[in-house]
This record gives sequence, structure tokens and C-alpha cells, in this order.
Amino acid sequence: MSRIPNSLCSLSDYEIEAKRHLPPDLWAYISGSSMDGLTKQRNTSAYDQCLLQSRVLVEGLGQGSCQTQLFGQSLKYPLLIAPLAYQRLVHPMGEIATVQAALAQGVGFCLSTLSSTSIEAVADAASESCRWFQLYCQPDLSDTLHLINRAELAGYQALIVTVDAPFNGVRHDEQRAGFRLPSDVCAVNLNHLPKLREGDSVFECWMKTAPTWKTITSILEHTQLPVLLKGIMHPEDALNAVDLGVRGIVVSNHGGRVLDTQPASLEVLPLMRQVLPKGFPILVDGGIRRGSDVFKAIALGADAVLLGRYVLYALAVAGPLGVAHVLRVLRDEFEATMALCGCARVSDISTVCLYDFPRAFSNKGR
Amino acid sequence: MSRIPNSLCSLSDYEIEAKRHLPPDLWAYISGSSMDGLTKQRNTSAYDQCLLQSRVLVEGLGQGSCQTQLFGQSLKYPLLIAPLAYQRLVHPMGEIATVQAALAQGVGFCLSTLSSTSIEAVADAASESCRWFQLYCQPDLSDTLHLINRAELAGYQALIVTVDAPFNGVRHDEQRAGFRLPSDVCAVNLNHLPKLREGDSVFECWMKTAPTWKTITSILEHTQLPVLLKGIMHPEDALNAVDLGVRGIVVSNHGGRVLDTQPASLEVLPLMRQVLPKGFPILVDGGIRRGSDVFKAIALGADAVLLGRYVLYALAVAGPLGVAHVLRVLRDEFEATMALCGCARVSDISTVCLYDFPRAFSNKGR
Amino acid sequence: MSRIPNSLCSLSDYEIEAKRHLPPDLWAYISGSSMDGLTKQRNTSAYDQCLLQSRVLVEGLGQGSCQTQLFGQSLKYPLLIAPLAYQRLVHPMGEIATVQAALAQGVGFCLSTLSSTSIEAVADAASESCRWFQLYCQPDLSDTLHLINRAELAGYQALIVTVDAPFNGVRHDEQRAGFRLPSDVCAVNLNHLPKLREGDSVFECWMKTAPTWKTITSILEHTQLPVLLKGIMHPEDALNAVDLGVRGIVVSNHGGRVLDTQPASLEVLPLMRQVLPKGFPILVDGGIRRGSDVFKAIALGADAVLLGRYVLYALAVAGPLGVAHVLRVLRDEFEATMALCGCARVSDISTVCLYDFPRAFSNKGR
Amino acid sequence: MSRIPNSLCSLSDYEIEAKRHLPPDLWAYISGSSMDGLTKQRNTSAYDQCLLQSRVLVEGLGQGSCQTQLFGQSLKYPLLIAPLAYQRLVHPMGEIATVQAALAQGVGFCLSTLSSTSIEAVADAASESCRWFQLYCQPDLSDTLHLINRAELAGYQALIVTVDAPFNGVRHDEQRAGFRLPSDVCAVNLNHLPKLREGDSVFECWMKTAPTWKTITSILEHTQLPVLLKGIMHPEDALNAVDLGVRGIVVSNHGGRVLDTQPASLEVLPLMRQVLPKGFPILVDGGIRRGSDVFKAIALGADAVLLGRYVLYALAVAGPLGVAHVLRVLRDEFEATMALCGCARVSDISTVCLYDFPRAFSNKGR
Repeated sequence: MSRIPNSLCSLSDYEIEAKRHLPPDLWAYISGSSMDGLTKQRNTSAYDQCLLQSRVLVEGLGQGSCQTQLFGQSLKYPLLIAPLAYQRLVHPMGEIATVQAALAQGVGFCLSTLSSTSIEAVADAASESCRWFQLYCQPDLSDTLHLINRAELAGYQALIVTVDAPFNGVRHDEQRAGFRLPSDVCAVNLNHLPKLREGDSVFECWMKTAPTWKTITSILEHTQLPVLLKGIMHPEDALNAVDLGVRGIVVSNHGGRVLDTQPASLEVLPLMRQVLPKGFPILVDGGIRRGSDVFKAIALGADAVLLGRYVLYALAVAGPLGVAHVLRVLRDEFEATMALCGCARVSDISTVCLYDFPRAFSNKGR
Repeated sequence: MSRIPNSLCSLSDYEIEAKRHLPPDLWAYISGSSMDGLTKQRNTSAYDQCLLQSRVLVEGLGQGSCQTQLFGQSLKYPLLIAPLAYQRLVHPMGEIATVQAALAQGVGFCLSTLSSTSIEAVADAASESCRWFQLYCQPDLSDTLHLINRAELAGYQALIVTVDAPFNGVRHDEQRAGFRLPSDVCAVNLNHLPKLREGDSVFECWMKTAPTWKTITSILEHTQLPVLLKGIMHPEDALNAVDLGVRGIVVSNHGGRVLDTQPASLEVLPLMRQVLPKGFPILVDGGIRRGSDVFKAIALGADAVLLGRYVLYALAVAGPLGVAHVLRVLRDEFEATMALCGCARVSDISTVCLYDFPRAFSNKGR
Repeated sequence: MSRIPNSLCSLSDYEIEAKRHLPPDLWAYISGSSMDGLTKQRNTSAYDQCLLQSRVLVEGLGQGSCQTQLFGQSLKYPLLIAPLAYQRLVHPMGEIATVQAALAQGVGFCLSTLSSTSIEAVADAASESCRWFQLYCQPDLSDTLHLINRAELAGYQALIVTVDAPFNGVRHDEQRAGFRLPSDVCAVNLNHLPKLREGDSVFECWMKTAPTWKTITSILEHTQLPVLLKGIMHPEDALNAVDLGVRGIVVSNHGGRVLDTQPASLEVLPLMRQVLPKGFPILVDGGIRRGSDVFKAIALGADAVLLGRYVLYALAVAGPLGVAHVLRVLRDEFEATMALCGCARVSDISTVCLYDFPRAFSNKGR
Repeated sequence: MSRIPNSLCSLSDYEIEAKRHLPPDLWAYISGSSMDGLTKQRNTSAYDQCLLQSRVLVEGLGQGSCQTQLFGQSLKYPLLIAPLAYQRLVHPMGEIATVQAALAQGVGFCLSTLSSTSIEAVADAASESCRWFQLYCQPDLSDTLHLINRAELAGYQALIVTVDAPFNGVRHDEQRAGFRLPSDVCAVNLNHLPKLREGDSVFECWMKTAPTWKTITSILEHTQLPVLLKGIMHPEDALNAVDLGVRGIVVSNHGGRVLDTQPASLEVLPLMRQVLPKGFPILVDGGIRRGSDVFKAIALGADAVLLGRYVLYALAVAGPLGVAHVLRVLRDEFEATMALCGCARVSDISTVCLYDFPRAFSNKGR
């Protein structure tokens, strides 16, 4: 696609088009969720139910800007592309397309351990990019540390360790659709590693080699990069992370893909902000489809957001151009929301910009 | 249409018929809303969830009346036609039809800056009408003041300055439908003015020339007409307006057309009434489809309401007769509601006429 | 229909069948409601949301009974057929069929002022019945009193004065469907009376001749029959009625046919019970479709319920047999609910039989 | 069916497939519920609205287990198959298939009084099974005691007396579908007993012979087996049971089959846990479709759950293999939920594992 048609104006438009475009099994894999999809749905409806407080006639908005800083790097607006496995499933350029779109639009990029393009190739394709490496801990710690070494060498600027998915979770959508990786797409970064054996049960198989807090300590001792944990939903887990020296967290329920009937990530955010040290970086993902959603996440305490499935929808529908477009649409909507809520800077965004907070929010989604 | 058929009994009937009648792109432009239309929907459901308290056997209703006074003018019932751009899009008579229907039915009329008929022509067509001029502030203050001069000369009796739409907002319905103004309809009042350039971003383009409180001060210094601000949703903005000498406000989220996921205008009304000086005129728009909705707005603190999209639906379906019919239907429903709630005068309408207020209302819409 | 088929088990089955059976305009008239039908819907959902508290292994239920006493008369269970206009519209036997079914099933019957069979003919057809006369006050008081005289002479045992419908309300369903009374059905009791003129507005026409508290005083002075007021939704109106000597009230919003967006009648019931003198008869109608709904109304303070539209549905579908069947179905369901909630007598039914009352109920429907 | 296809991943898949597979009258009988099915629906939605609190990086989950003990017996996870009448209706092996699947999967089995296979034959087919006998009290106490004797002789390890269904309840689904038992399926355990006569009313017929607390006392005096009561929804009934020497209760509304508009069984559970003695066994049924639902029931105070309709769906669709599969799916989901909520033992599961308990739960379902 060399030009984005009028009919693609919003992220939801890409979702609809991707569903038409992709084979059903691949659609099931990408769009799917754990069990009955209630948390995936709740992630979105939490944003819809969070109300904005508009302001009028504010001075100084002509000098407004939605730039932000994160770990010393500048982003055009507070967003990174979430780590997404196997991007070559939906487009031959895969992760290369995505990182280049991120660079062009001035947002960050997270490369998945399960990427279909190597750590090094992605770095080469966008050497100026803000890029983080997402780490799935491997059964053997030395394999994990080796992946970190590769990311450091390739100039990744942070590590984001996913801790909420010691196994895949109960994902019936893809099971029913019979999804399997095609032969030409694989986790190239892990090619040399042994396959995990499939055991008799969750406890006996997966949990025997699942990472624990000790694994995190080993990682922190091994690397100078800032380490973030992704998938924190309990304040005590967040505080524990701070104590160990973790530099940031991503409040996330893995987009509802691992354990269903969790609360929305947005619901958990205000308490996280409240208990964590002032200035400690909090990111959030899950359910974001609008620039106004980015605004709401910031208002409730996030420093930035990660965008997941919609990146793949855009990549599937319109390649790198689609990804860039989606990133631009979100920024325009974010900027419009800032202006209409009277915020000239990202740092002006707070709970004051939400209608009837905290009363409204304390009942949200129930 | 020379006679209204039985099937058109309520404002919703006109909406359904207008959708059938209008070309899709025009329908998208008129009925559309910002982003996902949640605020448009909430504007309506807020009225549906606000419950009436009926009374029986009340004496004196045979002498009842729904007349009211606003800025010294008498209205048959407390309603004005909202400022609506480009009315010739849906009917060749455009604003002329609408102002004449308003005059015939004894309600007020607001002319949009973006009208497709000139300030002067509308005044000539209905010189006895209660008519206000709605002002979109122009990038150059002198152009704004010149518009005010024209409205004063043409006998408009109040100025209603829209402050919640420094730009169009995110309107995907009309973008998807590919709506563009046809060549024979334009903002005739602005014909001599330079086009705004489209810039790279909201901040860099639109907000550079957006009105601020200083603009309002300039307007107040320039005119003797009462000035109202339209689009206020925050009590502090309302109090600021009072301090500057503004004479009334319209609680409004622009019918959900500018910024989505705002609260319903009705939800915000009780707090506005509470914080503003006794007797300070408050109007409200958004979501009104029934005479009982007018009653509820008055009960929660409004002095009058503005009616928007439904006027265009009626104009599209049945021309001036349709507009007059819609205005009459609303009045009949309003009068019936007054009688059944035991109110002989508009001034009898208060929160006492609502069921279980304030408890019920404090949870409304959630 | 000489035998009720298996497919008609519940009142809802009759509703579905009646919709299939009746001409659309007649269906619109009978099933229709004011404006958008929100109160009609809420009447029903209030029952659905009111939860029962079951009890087990209770002694003495083998001697249970659902009989009750009302104004000295015995009913097999606490229900009367509501006053329903023009019953010959749906079946040639009209009110005769209905009163005979009521007699056979041991419940009460209210004859409408607007009946299509005369006061006297109904009395003759079921002289042993428990029958009340419903009174619409006529513009001329002497006409009203004459109707009362006829009812007294014909052995009606109570008067039930409808006070919530000084005019028809806003009923668009029947207007859209173009419903008109056929030539062979009319308000035979009013044949000799002048037609009300249709005036320019609610206040100027209908409210000039609407009944007031003075009218009620005149009626009370004129008759020895117990007088009940039907259509009370405000506690002050109820207390006023008691003060004047009224002997009972019907908590009712006229089945949602007169003023939309009122609360459900069931919602208002507990407060009525709380403010009215102990033992003062309270009836309720609106939304009852199940014997468990009768139970809930009793639990929240009613002495008996009125059943309205469903009687007409049954009459339309299966004549007198259908009405008798519907009355029996309700009784069986009522009895089953009593047994499963551990109540051997109607007087055992109280709020204790509801789950989580009052907390649950105070939020009901919101 | 000799192999479970990919399309059957979850219990809901079996429900959909069973509906396709079974004749409509049989489907109506099995899936049906009392009146409008609101309690059946609420049973399920209560689980959906109960939210999980995930934990990450917990040590020791590699040694996790979901085993539990109940009345001295070990279960692979805390579940029993509920007593289900007439299982040969859906599969020729009937109860034999089900008990063998339960044995194979290490869960408990309850045999219904109304089983289509005899008490003794079921025992013979799975002599090592954990099996309980469900008792419907017969009109004649000696018949009841004789059933108990047979269950004791056949090695059943507990009695579970159903107390919430003195009669069938109002079940219109099966009535409308015209369901009748086929000639080759019957309640074989009751073949020698007289048929209950059908009387004129609930009180006069069914309640005359319904069990009372005295019946329970007689049963307790007669047997050494632990006796549980099934169908308790009121804390006072539960406390009464404890006082009499009952050894456990099943919080249940009979899957919504007897009395509609009761609360969900899950809603009632926390209060039961609170009022009953520490360690007193509480089971629960109704609405469970996911292993995460089993987890939630345990978290809110249950010691184990009963699984009902879904067992029949699986039996209908895929025979004993289907039942075993469903039991395994639930266990896998339960184990996954335990691992993701950081619980290594069933005894680690508590309200702490639920999000925002008790505040969230106190508003659940309303």
C-alpha cells in the first residue's frame, strides 16, 4: 500500500481491515486472548469509562508540545511500540518495518526475544532509534545473560523483562483456529537453544524453570542497562522491584493474553503511582486505541505507554507506512486532547484533567 | 412536504427519516461526532437515566403556562435553536427557514458564524425574532470585532461565543464518508477573510490563533450586547467568565463533536448551578430529544436549552414546516411533563421534581 | 381456543403470541407506552433485579395457603385484574370474559370507566364476583357522581379513582400505527356525555377540567364505598390521600403509558409502606409477569397487585380460557415462590424474604 | 468419539456442541432453568465479574500441586461431579461413563437418587472411586432410610441431601419443548416405590410430603456416613444444619433450575464462610465453566466445587472420553490460575488472590 485511504482514520479501522486481510488462524493468534477475553475487553472499556475534563481559553497553548523524556532519551510523544513476537508473520519486512516507522515518528521501540528478525539486524536497520530489548528469561540463566550481552552490544538502551507469562496461558482462540508458526518464521534469537520439553502439568513442567525474583537479581548484577519489569499488577510486586534496583515497571496484564478476568491495567495504575517513589518510571499497556487513551494513562500516573496489537494490524494492512500512520494518528489525537484539556506540556497532565476523579474512577468498570 | 405524516411524531422519528433522506456523506457530517461517539451517546443517556417525580391532583394547572423570560425577551418555552453551520446544505432556504420557524413557534434562534446565509439576510427575514449571533473568534481580532459590529447593526440581541472548539476535533465519521462542502454552500459571513493555513500539528497550527481569556476581554470591551460563552464544562472556567463580565454560559460539550469521552452536559449542570451566582443565566445543549428532557435540564438548573442536530434533521426532512413541527412537539411534551409533575410555571420546576435527587443523580451514567 | 397448548406456559408466552395475533395498530395501542417506553421497561426490570432469599426444610408448609383478605373480601391470592379500557377490541366477549375468568379463579376485577360493556351488564354476568369500579373523573362533577351511583347500584364494592392521567400522555406507538377505535367498540358508560373538546395545549385544554384534591373530597362525601386512588408515586400525595379519608392507594405509573422516565412502581413501594399508617391498603401495578413478582410486591409492602396488559394478551389469544389460565399460572408461580421462600401464609411474606434488602434494593435499577 | 478435536478446548465449546448434538426437547431439559433463567445467568456472570490478582516471580511454584483432601479422601483437585439425574438420556453408558471418568481424573463423583443406573452397578463399575450418594427424601421415611442403607452397603462415602427442591420448580423450557422421559430411561433406584400423586397445588400436593428439619434429624440418627445438605442459600439455614450435626453444606440454587431470581451461589459464599465454624466444609455449585472459576470459589471460602450441566454436555458430545477431557481442561486451567496468582497449594488460595476484595465483591452483579 503506497497511500493510506480515507477509510483508515483510526486504530479501530486498522483492526477491522486486518481482520479482513489476515488468514483466520493468524488473526486468531494476533487478536486472541486468554479464555473468554474479558480482560482484553476490560482493558479497552476502562479507557472508555474514564472521562476527560475539558478547559477553555487557556493561554500559552500556541507554544504547546507533546515531547517527553524517558531514561534520558527524547520521544516525540510518550509512546513505545510494545515487544511483539514474530512480526514477519504479517509482513515480509517484519521488525525492520516497525522499528523504522518508530524512528520516523520519534517514538520508542521494544524488540521481542521472540522476534523473527535478529537483535543485530534490527539495530543495523535503525541505528538511531530509541530501542529496548524485551527479555523472556530462558530455563538456563547463562542463555538469558547471553541474550543480554547481545542486546548491549547491539546498542539497545534498556532491558524490559516480561514476568507475567511463565507460560502461554490458556489461549483457546488460536487453539481452535489451529494456528502454528509457518516454517519460514521463527524465533531467530533462540535458534541455538534447546526446546522446552512439554510436561504433564503447569506446575511440573513450566513452573520448574520459570524466573523468580532471584533471576531478576542475577540479571541486575549482570548488566548496566536500566532494567524494567513488564507485567506487574500488584503494588507489592512493584515495591519489591524497586527494592531490588529495577528502574521501571510496565503495568500490564499482557493484553489479556495470559490470565483472564484480571482488572484492566488502567484500573491498577493510580494505586501504583501512589505507592511508588515520586519519579519512578511507570509504563502501561493494554486497551489503548486513541490518543485520548494515551492522555488518560499519563493523567493516571504513567510516564509512557506501549502500543501492541494495533501495530501488527497496521503492519498487516499497510506495511511500514501503516505503522507510521497509526503512530501519527495517535499523536494527533493525543495533541488534540492536550490542547482541549488545557495542557501545554506532558507534565501538565494530571488527574485534575479527569472528570470527577477520584470518585468516578473508584467505581470504574463495575 | 406540505403536511407532516403520522409517522413523524417525535424528534427521533425525524432522525431516522433524515438518515434515509440525506446522502451518506452529509448524514455523516451532521450526525457525526468526535472519535467513537461516546459523549454524544452519553449526552442522551444522561437524560434517559434522570427520573421524573410525578404529582397528582394539583390545583391551578388550568392556568399553567410554559412561557419564560431570557435577557428581557419572552419565549413561549425555554428553548433556542442552537447555532448550526451551513444550513443550506440540507434545504435551499437554509437559515431563513429555521429563523422563521423559530419566530412562528416563539422560541429563540442563534445564527452561526459559519451560516450559509448572511447575518443581514437572516435579520431581514425575521426582524421580530429573538435572535443571537454565535461568534467563532477569528485569527485577527479586528475581523472578530467587525463580525460583532455587523450583528449589532442587524439587531441581534446577544452574542454567544463558542470557546470549546479552537479546531474541529477528531471527526472520523465525516472523514471516512469523504464529506466536503459543495461549491454552492459556504460561510458567507467570512467570504472576505483569509483561509486559515493547515499546519503540521494542533499546537503549531490551530492553537497559535485560538482565542484566550484575553480575547474575551477584548470582546466585552467592544460591545454592549450581552455576551455568553458556549462550551463551558469546568466550574472554574464558569466562575472566571462571571468575573470578566460575561452574562451567561452554555454548558456544552459541542454535542460530542469535538472531544470524546467528556461527561454529559447534563451531568455537569447541577454543579454549575451550585457554584454560579443566583440568577446567573445558564443554558445547556446536547442530548435533548424530548420535552421531558427540556424539563429535566430546567430542573437541574438551566434557564433554557439549545436544540441542535434535530433542527437540521427536521429541516432536511420537511423544510420550515418540519422545523416548526419539531419545535411544537417539544413544547407539547414539555407542557405535558410540567402538568404531570404538578408545575404551573417554569419557575416551579426544580430538583424536587426529580426522583431521588441528589442520590440517584450522583451515580447517573455510571 | 378450547385447550391451551404446551407452548403457552408463562405470561410472556401470551405476549409473544398476542403480538403475532393482533393487527399492528391494536397491538401498538395495547402494548404501547409513553414516549420511549423506558418506564414500561423499568417496571419489569425492577422485578428482575429484586432477588429472592430461599429457605429450606421449613415446617408447616403442607398447611400453606395463598389466600388473602382485602376490604373484607376473600381472594384466592392477592391479585385483581386492572381496569382496562375497551376489552371488546380484542375479543367479542370483552369485559364479560374477563370478569368471569376472575370469578372462576377467585381474584378481583376492576371495571374501567372506558369499558366496552356497561357497568350493569358486567355485574349481571358475574354477580358473585369481587368487582371494583374504576373512575375517570368527568369534566362535569355531576356526571362523575352519576357514574358512582350506577356502580353502587350494580353492586361494585369499591371505587378506584385514576388520578395520574388527566390526559392521555405522549403515546407515539399508537399514533404512528394510526390506531383508532373501530365503530363497534366504544365507551358505553359515557355514551350520553359530551365529548371533550381538543384544545390548543395541555394547560389550556385538558388541565382546565382535570380533577384536583377538591374533586376527591366531593367524591368521598358522595359515596359510602371505599375509595382508592390509583397512580400515586409521591409519598406526600399518598399522605394527603390518607388525610382526606381515602381508603387505599395504587402505586402506579399507569404501566408507563402516561409519563415516561418515571421510576418503576416497585421502586417507590418500600417508601410508601414506610410512611403510610400500618395496615393502610397499598396496591401496585406495572411490570408484573410472574408469580414471583407478586411475591416481591407483597414483600416490599403491597397488599395486592393489579394485572394489566397481560390480561388483554390472554384474552386476545385464547378468550376467557386464556384469562383464566394466566391467572392460574400466576397463582401457581406465586405459591411455588411462597413455598421455596418458606412462607405458609401471605402475611409471612416480608422484606426478610428478599436477598440483601435494603442494601441491594436501594441501588436497584441504577 | 475416539479423539477430542481441536475445536473442543473449553467447557463452553462442549455446551455449543451439545446444543447442536442433542434433540431439542432433551437440550431443553438439560440446559433449562426456572422461569426466565436469570439466576442461571447470574451464577455465571458472578464468576466473570470476580477479578483475579496476579502475582509474579514467586519462588517455589515448581513444587506446586492442586491436590486437596475432603472428608479424609484425596482429590487431584477440589472438584466433584454433581448429582445429575438420568445420565443414560445422553449416552448409553450413562453414570458408568461418568464415574469412570471421575476416577480416572482423580475427582469425586455424586450419584443422583434419580440415576438411570443403580446404586450398586455404579459402585461395581468404579469401586476405587470417591463417590457420594445424593438423596432426594421420599414421602415415606422408611423408603429414604432404605436408600441410605443401599448406599452404605455399596461403599458410598458420604450422603448429600438435596433440600432446595421439594418439587421441580417452574421449568418452562422443558414444558414448551414437550420433554418426557423415554421408556428405556428411568429412576431405577426408585422402581419399587409408589409414584407421587399430582395434586391441585404446590401446598396441597408437594409440600405435604416435603422433607423438614425433622427429616434431617432422622437421617442423621440413622447413618454413620457424613451427611451434607445441598441447596443452602441462607446463613441461618447453614447454622441450623451445623447445630443438628450436618457435616457440610453445598451452597447452591440448584443451577437456577428451581427458583429464579435468587442471587448467584458465589455471591452468598463469603457470608457463609464468615458465619460457619472454621474448617466446616463448604461446597458450591452453579455457574462454574473455567478452572479460574474453581479458583475463585476456593478463594471465597469453598473447600471444593460441584460441576453439573457441563458433565452432561461432555457425555453427550464425546462419551466418557469427553467427561474425562472436561475434567482435565478444568484442572489445567485451575493449575494455571494458581501458578499465575502465586499459589503453590490449594490452601494458599484466599481472598487476597482477588482484586479489590471485599469492596469489588460487595457490589458484584449489581
